[in-house]
Amino acid sequence: MSDAPKKVVLAYSGGLDTSIILKWLQTEYGCEVVTFTADLGQGEELEPARQKAELLGIAPENIHIEDLREEFVRDFVFPMFRANAVYEGEYLLGTSIARPLISKRLVEIAKASGADAVAHGATGKGNDQVRFELSAYALDPSIKVIAPWREWDLTSRTKLIEFAEQNQIPIAKDKRGEAPFSVDANLLHTSSEGKALENPAEEAPDYVYQRTVSPEEAPDTPEYIEVTFERGDATAINGQAMSPATILTQLNEYGRKHGIGRLDFVENRFVGMKSRGIYETPGGTILLAAHRGIEQITLDSGAGHLKDSLMPRYAELIYNGFWFSPEREMLQALIDKSQEHVTGTVRLKLYKGSVNTVGRWSDHSLYSEKHVTFEEDAGAYDQKDAAGFIKLNALRLKLIGNRNARVK
Amino acid sequence: MSDAPKKVVLAYSGGLDTSIILKWLQTEYGCEVVTFTADLGQGEELEPARQKAELLGIAPENIHIEDLREEFVRDFVFPMFRANAVYEGEYLLGTSIARPLISKRLVEIAKASGADAVAHGATGKGNDQVRFELSAYALDPSIKVIAPWREWDLTSRTKLIEFAEQNQIPIAKDKRGEAPFSVDANLLHTSSEGKALENPAEEAPDYVYQRTVSPEEAPDTPEYIEVTFERGDATAINGQAMSPATILTQLNEYGRKHGIGRLDFVENRFVGMKSRGIYETPGGTILLAAHRGIEQITLDSGAGHLKDSLMPRYAELIYNGFWFSPEREMLQALIDKSQEHVTGTVRLKLYKGSVNTVGRWSDHSLYSEKHVTFEEDAGAYDQKDAAGFIKLNALRLKLIGNRNARVK
Amino acid sequence: MSDAPKKVVLAYSGGLDTSIILKWLQTEYGCEVVTFTADLGQGEELEPARQKAELLGIAPENIHIEDLREEFVRDFVFPMFRANAVYEGEYLLGTSIARPLISKRLVEIAKASGADAVAHGATGKGNDQVRFELSAYALDPSIKVIAPWREWDLTSRTKLIEFAEQNQIPIAKDKRGEAPFSVDANLLHTSSEGKALENPAEEAPDYVYQRTVSPEEAPDTPEYIEVTFERGDATAINGQAMSPATILTQLNEYGRKHGIGRLDFVENRFVGMKSRGIYETPGGTILLAAHRGIEQITLDSGAGHLKDSLMPRYAELIYNGFWFSPEREMLQALIDKSQEHVTGTVRLKLYKGSVNTVGRWSDHSLYSEKHVTFEEDAGAYDQKDAAGFIKLNALRLKLIGNRNARVK
Amino acid sequence: MSDAPKKVVLAYSGGLDTSIILKWLQTEYGCEVVTFTADLGQGEELEPARQKAELLGIAPENIHIEDLREEFVRDFVFPMFRANAVYEGEYLLGTSIARPLISKRLVEIAKASGADAVAHGATGKGNDQVRFELSAYALDPSIKVIAPWREWDLTSRTKLIEFAEQNQIPIAKDKRGEAPFSVDANLLHTSSEGKALENPAEEAPDYVYQRTVSPEEAPDTPEYIEVTFERGDATAINGQAMSPATILTQLNEYGRKHGIGRLDFVENRFVGMKSRGIYETPGGTILLAAHRGIEQITLDSGAGHLKDSLMPRYAELIYNGFWFSPEREMLQALIDKSQEHVTGTVRLKLYKGSVNTVGRWSDHSLYSEKHVTFEEDAGAYDQKDAAGFIKLNALRLKLIGNRNARVK
Repeated sequence: MSDAPKKVVLAYSGGLDTSIILKWLQTEYGCEVVTFTADLGQGEELEPARQKAELLGIAPENIHIEDLREEFVRDFVFPMFRANAVYEGEYLLGTSIARPLISKRLVEIAKASGADAVAHGATGKGNDQVRFELSAYALDPSIKVIAPWREWDLTSRTKLIEFAEQNQIPIAKDKRGEAPFSVDANLLHTSSEGKALENPAEEAPDYVYQRTVSPEEAPDTPEYIEVTFERGDATAINGQAMSPATILTQLNEYGRKHGIGRLDFVENRFVGMKSRGIYETPGGTILLAAHRGIEQITLDSGAGHLKDSLMPRYAELIYNGFWFSPEREMLQALIDKSQEHVTGTVRLKLYKGSVNTVGRWSDHSLYSEKHVTFEEDAGAYDQKDAAGFIKLNALRLKLIGNRNARVK
Repeated sequence: MSDAPKKVVLAYSGGLDTSIILKWLQTEYGCEVVTFTADLGQGEELEPARQKAELLGIAPENIHIEDLREEFVRDFVFPMFRANAVYEGEYLLGTSIARPLISKRLVEIAKASGADAVAHGATGKGNDQVRFELSAYALDPSIKVIAPWREWDLTSRTKLIEFAEQNQIPIAKDKRGEAPFSVDANLLHTSSEGKALENPAEEAPDYVYQRTVSPEEAPDTPEYIEVTFERGDATAINGQAMSPATILTQLNEYGRKHGIGRLDFVENRFVGMKSRGIYETPGGTILLAAHRGIEQITLDSGAGHLKDSLMPRYAELIYNGFWFSPEREMLQALIDKSQEHVTGTVRLKLYKGSVNTVGRWSDHSLYSEKHVTFEEDAGAYDQKDAAGFIKLNALRLKLIGNRNARVK
Repeated sequence: MSDAPKKVVLAYSGGLDTSIILKWLQTEYGCEVVTFTADLGQGEELEPARQKAELLGIAPENIHIEDLREEFVRDFVFPMFRANAVYEGEYLLGTSIARPLISKRLVEIAKASGADAVAHGATGKGNDQVRFELSAYALDPSIKVIAPWREWDLTSRTKLIEFAEQNQIPIAKDKRGEAPFSVDANLLHTSSEGKALENPAEEAPDYVYQRTVSPEEAPDTPEYIEVTFERGDATAINGQAMSPATILTQLNEYGRKHGIGRLDFVENRFVGMKSRGIYETPGGTILLAAHRGIEQITLDSGAGHLKDSLMPRYAELIYNGFWFSPEREMLQALIDKSQEHVTGTVRLKLYKGSVNTVGRWSDHSLYSEKHVTFEEDAGAYDQKDAAGFIKLNALRLKLIGNRNARVK
Repeated sequence: MSDAPKKVVLAYSGGLDTSIILKWLQTEYGCEVVTFTADLGQGEELEPARQKAELLGIAPENIHIEDLREEFVRDFVFPMFRANAVYEGEYLLGTSIARPLISKRLVEIAKASGADAVAHGATGKGNDQVRFELSAYALDPSIKVIAPWREWDLTSRTKLIEFAEQNQIPIAKDKRGEAPFSVDANLLHTSSEGKALENPAEEAPDYVYQRTVSPEEAPDTPEYIEVTFERGDATAINGQAMSPATILTQLNEYGRKHGIGRLDFVENRFVGMKSRGIYETPGGTILLAAHRGIEQITLDSGAGHLKDSLMPRYAELIYNGFWFSPEREMLQALIDKSQEHVTGTVRLKLYKGSVNTVGRWSDHSLYSEKHVTFEEDAGAYDQKDAAGFIKLNALRLKLIGNRNARVK
């Protein structure tokens, strides 16, 4: 098979599934495998992945382990939050936004190590395969992408375990049986879906939530925090400057403690079916509220309404895997342009699952108490102007009214 | 003054301000005044308005008092909620949606009683003047609209009180001084703004909230309710069918009890400045969550994404006062078309300020467990199709990648 | 092969290619074939298709020949023109709009005749396969669709001719060689693409154009016509009422004569690549100009601008094959709502490739000479209103100006 | 009147109307007047304006005459053409785009010369007052704007002439009577409107057109030209590099000769009424066709469709006078981002009123003959991918089909 890959960079977690993929690539294609394991804040140690890769015969120079948390937040999460992006009204895109970064590093490592292919462990029913592959093809049109779940015949848990046993892949005890649901995690969120969660009529059991306490168990007294923004990005909490990843980590801790950011959701996958997911986005939920809060006083209505009207499309592009597309970059240019004065501080109240903006201030504020006041405004605003404003806005409606009276 | 109104229908609450307007219209224009007082669920008795109008010399046949609650919810609130309309990401448009109905009745009463003008008590700085007047002009292009606050010289509280005293208008004790803020209420919401609330950096004091308990004081145990929809409109709570206004009234009670629907917000007024408002929309907040929940399983992605992308524009039209405009009606036609199968039931958890969808089911569901399942799907979905799907979606990105490599 | 089709309805033109497909279906699947040949105004006689089908062994009751011209124009072309739909700024969607109707009839005939599959002759590189199949699946989710060009190994002209010869399919002399380009035609347009036209840098040779005289050969004197619309649809030419298909036929004749509606275009296919096409849409080009002309005076700016902003999406949906989708139907509801008063007459000048609106009038006109006149307008419009209108529109810009001066 | 202007910069053409305004400003406000006369390519000599200003007593240092043609095309016309902006489907915005530049210079001259106000000669019924004033307020929130046509009582031709005579303003013979229509011109276009043109049902007489020959009088043989673009802007004609203003001047000459760019149009003014205009945009019409032609091969569908969907809003912003607004700048950032590879050459055929793209080529082309060819493509494209692509695009439509069959 001349089209077979010679050297493959695999997105490798160190877990059972990607270990099986690793071995399958070696046996199916007889190819050299390079592993790539990234810390995106999923909360797992990475060194065990190194040991497992070595155990499976990967040469040390072919094992890549990287801490991408700062890049993830700075270049992916923050740009997305400048847009207040939510998918289908509610989902904060925690999984979607991580995939392009992984693909970017896969392709870069492939280039550096002379590999001709990349491989991922996403299934053929989901969105992640699309996100991985569109990003990879956009960044290197000649790359091969291998998606074992779409190719192999290991279509049941039993067959997977058999394959692992035949290939001396160690199997943790709790991995022999089926997991009750599938989990993805990074610094922005944890998602759970599948199996026990497949009936959207039934409330998700509490043990599904891994990253937040339940609102019922959250503290009985509210906590207030202040988040500071510069040009649309969070830069400090309670006056203390922090790096992007540190800020998100801190906000996650606030959110975890107060039960913030849980979402039980049925969404439309790009591949055509609906699926139900349980999402926990503790820090992101706070960040979104804070960002909206600072935009309230620093963003003009013309800018804000334009952003709002384009946000669904922007979110859809990210959800569907088009981060590396001209249209996402065009929208990003528009969004970033809007953020030049989105600088200031927001005060938030955290309490039992809720986050609410209760105050905001900024040197860049467009709020003018002088104009809006119920008190005497010393000529800042002439109420008589409103008469002309209304008259001309009404003119076309009057013409329509007259016409409709005339011809009906 | 030949252009002076002969007979004016006044939106009359029975309060001090509109009583002053009533008298001012009589003295300024020497015109006959017709009063119109509507029950939109603001929670005040209307009969006192009749007595006050009579006291001010209005003939009994010129006093109109109407219960519009069902029409308000059925023909204005529900159509708006079909769109999941929120203004600037958060505001549920509680004041905006009531104005067109009041104008509609003002114009109808004017027609029926031979009046040539209508009058309202909105100030020249706000959105309400625009909403009242655009609606009135759209429905009767020849109507005159009188906005005393833009015309008279009663520009301070002192002058108003003087005018009232000179004209034998009774003044309730608590109305002599300035109110600490201004309030508007109807079945959908209560808004508070101005004066004590004019500094957006400061948290609103708790006494501002009139319609909901604070989350801290809400019950310590969650409550679950089920809301049923037919073609996009709520028709039952916990299996019990109710009229539109009854449903909203009930949801308000649930929301009030659990501290749901409070919003501290800075928004962009149509007349050009930013203002800060405190909104309480208890039932509406629950209704929005429920409607989104039922759409999750009954609305296709193509329909949902189109709706989402147009929602900001639709909300802006309502906020700006263009309910009776061709473009709002066109958008409504689009939205209503989407709701043909938005039928089913949503289960919601109410707890200390939050409302969360935890289950949804429907005969009209598009959710297909057969397609999405992690289990063997018996051929419902061929994972290999995804390969072609991705390949063709990637084709243009590859061509771009090749081009960019070539020319840069 | 249990999945093999038992009875297939084939979109059959009577030409060589679909005759080969017919035979291939019989031999490959051993299935019964039903032929469907439609008159969509492509300008070919249909009875020869009956004879050829009989020759290839199709039972008379399995041969369906239908004149769909009126349905095509009334239910597909006219609704689309209500939207002023053009794809990528220029293409009038002549091929795209015909496919859903063919699929609709294929599926209906399949249902009536107990067939379990439909088949079409579109290739695997184009848009038409997508349009045929999306429509078929939308109308009958259980239908099988067979696309021989994606399945068989008759991948060259030589192999096709061999197959035809081996199967006693008559081959017209001029079909032995390669056609210099590929043609599609219906009442709305003729498209030519491929082969001789594949270099987008080279001007298309004049012999490509089949349906219009060249502008150079068109009459030296302009011709004027008047087109009348009712609720957005053309109903008469020069005062003479006609059926939809008759109107389009007549406009085609005017366009042909004056060299109107030629387009040399490079477009983006849904399947990811660019292609170059030569389109001739004589009557459609006149119809579009006329429709825009009548909208100029009968459509309000709010309605018109909303339509304009959604048109590209509507056109994209039709181009991509989503005629039978909820979002196209939602947009259609919006568009149709806008057309309630699009009634009146437009006067057009046709001359050497151009069509220009030179006059328009309507009882439903919103044009008000009284308001717009440079003469004394007797109080129709108070110029002083403009001052207030501008002041309030400027307010936010002033606040921005002040802010930017302050913080930069 | 303490609010009266002390020193006013007047947009001064040297004609009768602005001379009257000049004198009126002096007499009404007793203020110092600074004149600003710009060459935007309107085709009139400017030095006579200097003499007239001097005659009216303006000090030499207060007379500003500037050639703004290059700035006009480079910073206003070209950015707008990157967007393919057309208002309401047809109007190329020739007047709209000139106003912000004039306001910019008025404000800059005011700042430099210590003036506290600017003045313009636009009437209170049109769009130009809005454009002038929004731009001025955006650039200097504290500036006063004086619009004499909205203020004075010179409401008839007779009164104007009287005022001129009383004030020793010279009156050209042909200015004593009413002009049959009103004209505005600059390098991009000439517009004519009002009076003789106010009936939109009647064809405009040929003498209205001032800038193009009629198509009937244009040459009988077509002419071909090639326009080269770099990053979205035209840089050369027939291989010869030229400055922006030179290119537009040249294209105007081509357009004039071939009768290209005439438009008879009814549009919706921002101030609420419809008006009829006759526009001539010879070079702009060619430039638009050329720009679209080069985008056909260099712009990806994702980028192009996004641009197309936002163009109407962008055009509306310019038409309404919001050039200097955050939302126009945001859209410009998006548009400019899309133009990075819009580089290459277009071949156009000019003939009797029409301009048609007949060829286009570019090193930045995304057109891939290899992918699109009807010939054997050597594996560039796998037709089988299309099956999966269609299947997944169809999935949601099938689910809808099944649902609708089930519940209806």
